[in-house]
Amino acid sequence: MPTPFPHHYEVSLEAGYGEGVVSSDTRPPLLVGAPPEFDGRAGVWSPEHLLVSALAVCHYTTFEFLARRAGLEVRDYHASARAELAKTKDGLAFTRFELEVTLDVPPESAELALRLLQNAKDHCLVAGALKAPVVLRSVVRRAA
Amino acid sequence: MPTPFPHHYEVSLEAGYGEGVVSSDTRPPLLVGAPPEFDGRAGVWSPEHLLVSALAVCHYTTFEFLARRAGLEVRDYHASARAELAKTKDGLAFTRFELEVTLDVPPESAELALRLLQNAKDHCLVAGALKAPVVLRSVVRRAA
Repeated sequence: MPTPFPHHYEVSLEAGYGEGVVSSDTRPPLLVGAPPEFDGRAGVWSPEHLLVSALAVCHYTTFEFLARRAGLEVRDYHASARAELAKTKDGLAFTRFELEVTLDVPPESAELALRLLQNAKDHCLVAGALKAPVVLRSVVRRAA
Repeated sequence: MPTPFPHHYEVSLEAGYGEGVVSSDTRPPLLVGAPPEFDGRAGVWSPEHLLVSALAVCHYTTFEFLARRAGLEVRDYHASARAELAKTKDGLAFTRFELEVTLDVPPESAELALRLLQNAKDHCLVAGALKAPVVLRSVVRRAA
């Protein structure tokens, strides 16, 4: 059961000279900064990568919740997620997000899994928070 | 100089049994899952925390870029960022994001810093990607 709404999610950031550290309670701190595409360093988590991570994890946790409720055990869920940042008439903006999910399920659960993957996209809170469209491609493999 | 647009930012997620790992090139992998508010574990990065982190870091990197261009050196930037998730007539949704930034600058740069903090919010790509409003509170302290 979720805790009562509204929820508040909070992080703090200490930064200087172009890089910083994000922390939040007992989570492992994140080294953050601009991505290489904007002259940053490759080894840090950028806003762009954090945003697309939020989307990928949101789809997974939403799917996992729906699957558990439907009696489908999720053992091997693999996703790649991608954000496109492009010039638009209103300036630079995220124009599209893509999720590609590959899932192994018992043959009898394949139809259910496909439906739940789509439902998870429709109910994912991060997808719902974004202005740009989120495109889902699902690959359900029937495991023996 | 940014690399030519469009940019594509990509991560991958391997998950099962409710938790997973997000990776992206040489960035340190992130242990991820649902937050305690949705019956997850406190020590992992949740979608909600990743989303608010993306916003906080985006504001910082945008501000740092604008400050550098204006000749203002940013040594001590501290922020806390918060996302509100609430019931709405259309269901559960992110309804508001808050950024509180505290900055120490030389007295003569205080006005400039305040203006650039606001500009950074207006140009932050993650803030621009979100449907819900982002509210900025700036505290500029005049360091001796």
